[in-house]
Amino acid sequence: MHVTSEQAAAAIQAAITKANEIGNKSCIAVVDSGANLKGFHRMDGAWVGSIDVAIKKAHTAVFFAMPTGQLGKLSQPGQSLYGIEVSNHGLISFPGGLPIVDTEGVMIGAIGVSGSTVEDDEQVAKAGVKPVGVSDLPKHPWRT
Amino acid sequence: MHVTSEQAAAAIQAAITKANEIGNKSCIAVVDSGANLKGFHRMDGAWVGSIDVAIKKAHTAVFFAMPTGQLGKLSQPGQSLYGIEVSNHGLISFPGGLPIVDTEGVMIGAIGVSGSTVEDDEQVAKAGVKPVGVSDLPKHPWRT
Amino acid sequence: MHVTSEQAAAAIQAAITKANEIGNKSCIAVVDSGANLKGFHRMDGAWVGSIDVAIKKAHTAVFFAMPTGQLGKLSQPGQSLYGIEVSNHGLISFPGGLPIVDTEGVMIGAIGVSGSTVEDDEQVAKAGVKPVGVSDLPKHPWRT
Amino acid sequence: MHVTSEQAAAAIQAAITKANEIGNKSCIAVVDSGANLKGFHRMDGAWVGSIDVAIKKAHTAVFFAMPTGQLGKLSQPGQSLYGIEVSNHGLISFPGGLPIVDTEGVMIGAIGVSGSTVEDDEQVAKAGVKPVGVSDLPKHPWRT
Repeated sequence: MHVTSEQAAAAIQAAITKANEIGNKSCIAVVDSGANLKGFHRMDGAWVGSIDVAIKKAHTAVFFAMPTGQLGKLSQPGQSLYGIEVSNHGLISFPGGLPIVDTEGVMIGAIGVSGSTVEDDEQVAKAGVKPVGVSDLPKHPWRT
Repeated sequence: MHVTSEQAAAAIQAAITKANEIGNKSCIAVVDSGANLKGFHRMDGAWVGSIDVAIKKAHTAVFFAMPTGQLGKLSQPGQSLYGIEVSNHGLISFPGGLPIVDTEGVMIGAIGVSGSTVEDDEQVAKAGVKPVGVSDLPKHPWRT
Repeated sequence: MHVTSEQAAAAIQAAITKANEIGNKSCIAVVDSGANLKGFHRMDGAWVGSIDVAIKKAHTAVFFAMPTGQLGKLSQPGQSLYGIEVSNHGLISFPGGLPIVDTEGVMIGAIGVSGSTVEDDEQVAKAGVKPVGVSDLPKHPWRT
Repeated sequence: MHVTSEQAAAAIQAAITKANEIGNKSCIAVVDSGANLKGFHRMDGAWVGSIDVAIKKAHTAVFFAMPTGQLGKLSQPGQSLYGIEVSNHGLISFPGGLPIVDTEGVMIGAIGVSGSTVEDDEQVAKAGVKPVGVSDLPKHPWRT
């Protein structure tokens, strides 16, 4: 199950609205459940370096079916997944990437936001998920 | 000078409209004059393999300030630029990528479209350029 | 707005002069506001490994419109951007990369220096920026 | 034996002078005999896509100790080195890259030029080699 064209556009629009509301300049990426890019928007004034960070946050969220910040807790020095960021052509393990799960509990994709503090990025990502689903996955194994 | 957020959205929307009109399932990428991604949309049913092709077409058009198909004429076996596709992390040298030039003759970015025949891709790309500029560059040296 | 040929040459020359003054063997890279290479020089005796570090420092400074060392404070273990270095084909987050901002507050590119201690690299980078601009960006959103 | 800092600067300057003379907008790269970047300059108005092509031409000339155009004759469809361009992270096999050989017959590096027709690029490259050496290598095994 994949996020549709319409859902991707709605998620990006909702994220832009939230970013404008809190004064962010964000890059926003939406990927499907295969981690393939579905939609992307870079707001004027957003960092060029945030393009890849936003896309990698979306990748990361769908690759491991969890918010990127949750993965980051496990990848710190001394923790069990230390260094995992070098896999998969580069993961981002700080907040701002969230899975998108539909009403039937199916993960249909993910959103990644970059351009400000990680707290603000996470807030913009949450606003993006809202019109199309939730970010809480049912217990493993989830469906895609 | 860079394509704005509003211009990127308008270009993508116009391209989608044309794609729907002719029954295409397209990936559409817009980059700025530094070849950095500004906007992207993958229509439902478009090939996953077209994501990267569309982005690389936009890269190629801005890298060499010409339609991708024009580069392709020079890169055929026996021609002067044979094999150039391996440069720049991969170029696409068949039609579907077009520069975007504003009313003052400044190249502000490019659009790349992939998902159907190259003739149809080119047509969708042209429709995308229309609301924001032209694809004909003034004589070298152009400005960016 | 992009750093010109003349500005890139002036920045590199000023950096070389400073490097000679303090006995450094530096690699010096200048990129435009789209992070594309404009000028580069490797002084005799500089590490071959510094070529890529200098270029990546320039990339990083322009990607996030800040000195590379400032990003590094946020990317330490336990900090909010931990691990960001894997993005954008590799970022360098220790000192030696600085944005170049013109007199109108427009970021026109960046300089990256590698070859010695990070304090010395930073000093050489600062000397490079001096003849062509400053490194302090006006409040977000800046213009490029 | 490696091209020195002074030689790299002289080669680039001579190439720029020739490019200006014939109205070219060139990217010019100089590498040492280990194919590591020594100097680079992008003239104003040069294609952004030529950055990587110029560097890869210099790589190619030093990798195989021959003018890039000579390699290109062997890499056409049906010829013995068909497809070699995908090796070494990308080779460029059309004219514009030349070895730099000193007065003792030692290959000390190479120059790569991109930005115009391959004939003009080759002419600019030749002008760059002139103040620092020749491009004709003595019989194999050459020395580096």
